[in-house]
Amino acid sequence: MITDRLIEKIIDMQNPTCVGLDTLFDYLPDDMKAGVTNFDQVAERVFEFNKKLIDTLYGIVPSVKVQIAYYEMYGAAGMKAYEETLKYAAEKDLVVIADAKRNDIGSTAACYAKTFLGETSVNGIAQKAFPADYVTVNGYLGSDGILPFVEECEKADKGIFVLVKTSNPSGAEVQNVNLENGVPMYEYMGGLVEKWGESTVGKYGYSAVGAVVGATHPTEAARLREVLPHTFFLIPGYGAQGGNAQMLKSCFKANGLGGVVNNSRGILCAYKKQGGTYYDAAKAAAEAMQKDLSDVIGAMGK
Amino acid sequence: MITDRLIEKIIDMQNPTCVGLDTLFDYLPDDMKAGVTNFDQVAERVFEFNKKLIDTLYGIVPSVKVQIAYYEMYGAAGMKAYEETLKYAAEKDLVVIADAKRNDIGSTAACYAKTFLGETSVNGIAQKAFPADYVTVNGYLGSDGILPFVEECEKADKGIFVLVKTSNPSGAEVQNVNLENGVPMYEYMGGLVEKWGESTVGKYGYSAVGAVVGATHPTEAARLREVLPHTFFLIPGYGAQGGNAQMLKSCFKANGLGGVVNNSRGILCAYKKQGGTYYDAAKAAAEAMQKDLSDVIGAMGK
Repeated sequence: MITDRLIEKIIDMQNPTCVGLDTLFDYLPDDMKAGVTNFDQVAERVFEFNKKLIDTLYGIVPSVKVQIAYYEMYGAAGMKAYEETLKYAAEKDLVVIADAKRNDIGSTAACYAKTFLGETSVNGIAQKAFPADYVTVNGYLGSDGILPFVEECEKADKGIFVLVKTSNPSGAEVQNVNLENGVPMYEYMGGLVEKWGESTVGKYGYSAVGAVVGATHPTEAARLREVLPHTFFLIPGYGAQGGNAQMLKSCFKANGLGGVVNNSRGILCAYKKQGGTYYDAAKAAAEAMQKDLSDVIGAMGK
Repeated sequence: MITDRLIEKIIDMQNPTCVGLDTLFDYLPDDMKAGVTNFDQVAERVFEFNKKLIDTLYGIVPSVKVQIAYYEMYGAAGMKAYEETLKYAAEKDLVVIADAKRNDIGSTAACYAKTFLGETSVNGIAQKAFPADYVTVNGYLGSDGILPFVEECEKADKGIFVLVKTSNPSGAEVQNVNLENGVPMYEYMGGLVEKWGESTVGKYGYSAVGAVVGATHPTEAARLREVLPHTFFLIPGYGAQGGNAQMLKSCFKANGLGGVVNNSRGILCAYKKQGGTYYDAAKAAAEAMQKDLSDVIGAMGK
């Protein structure tokens, strides 16, 4: 079961880190950017950058999150690099999260679920489009928009993370408005997530339907951790967005489990601050993050 | 200004129709599907199907909406067909809506805005990825997730449609919950949309920041039409989803303006019910829809 597998890797490595491969072309070292003028060349260099990073990090971190916006902006060629990155990370046995925040209804949601979690049939021949272990989704459309993903999760042993409380400041405009029963929207959405996950709870007590809960909101995170006991958290906002280990500690239960913490620019662009090669700097940053998190969270699952 | 341009086309054609090019490969006639085994071949046939439809419909309907899920499911090859479809529809002077329901924060939202509405820079050379006139977006992340799109709208004379009240039954689980001031979430989201559009109101009184309002919810649509005077509606749910002209009439003001009505399967798959070629059947279905809408809505903008 996918969340069990992610948790076992976290326990093995004592590291609840997810490296965000938000590989904007501008993040690449100058020598890798030189001479590039079109999307095909961008795609080739971006994949080369990602491949070396994955080769460097796969024994240290359990998972990667690949933000699709940074590939789609380079057209169909960029999407080829996206596919290659997902597949290469899977080859290295990383748990792969497609950060696509998909949302639609009925048959369209089912298409998205097949695209990222299952298979597309072409005249009866099943093929994979952008294969990942998890995909992020947005729950504004209600159950019609989520259950097609849950069905695919059950069928293919995959997972989703639903946006609940995002890391950005203005998320509160929608997510922190109080409903007439006094519950804020994020908690109400969290309750839906807990319910959507009921059928897929694994041996560690977490379902395949996780929640995105920003590292930047410790109070909300503590409340969500309390009311969503079976929901695993994907935690963005560490580092560049201002979240730190102390702030996100409330996403974790007493046994040190409960979530995985994303860091994108802090690892991808570490070389810009620390010098050296991008991959050596990324490795040092990932190791420092592991220490930072484990110092605060404590032993994980032990 | 983009919404003015859409409205002028609607007035010229007396037709507020948007054809949804949700071109699932399975929708194609058997002879076009024959022998196809891989994504590259699917992409080629899907674009061929779309091209002929666009050639048939561009004088009759003002706009097309291209649902990205039905292309992405065929991988990078499918995304190439998506790009080609957007570009071909623009060549025929259709107003092109990329239905991608994108949502993310800050710099990531800015990437999405460039992808669909603006240009991507590669070492200073600006290029287009998936160019459209409008892109659909989801507002759950608040202003941080929307304003980067609005900036691009202002810069490039483009528009967005924000999900407000979607056409599916379970959208109510999130969208119809009442806030503590008694206002339902969809109306609250609508209020944000009206505000996000303030800086871009055109000569017909509508901004570049529209709202998705389902044809299947006449009561909610009437309320939204009343409280969002400057917001143009993209109206899904006509036909296959059960919405009809009477139900969606409340999306329009007394002068017959205020929205554009999408129909996907009812046009793409008309040949399956009516026989004949897919494009002749699509033309007949589009003409019937124009008559159906104008009979109920009345003269548009006159």
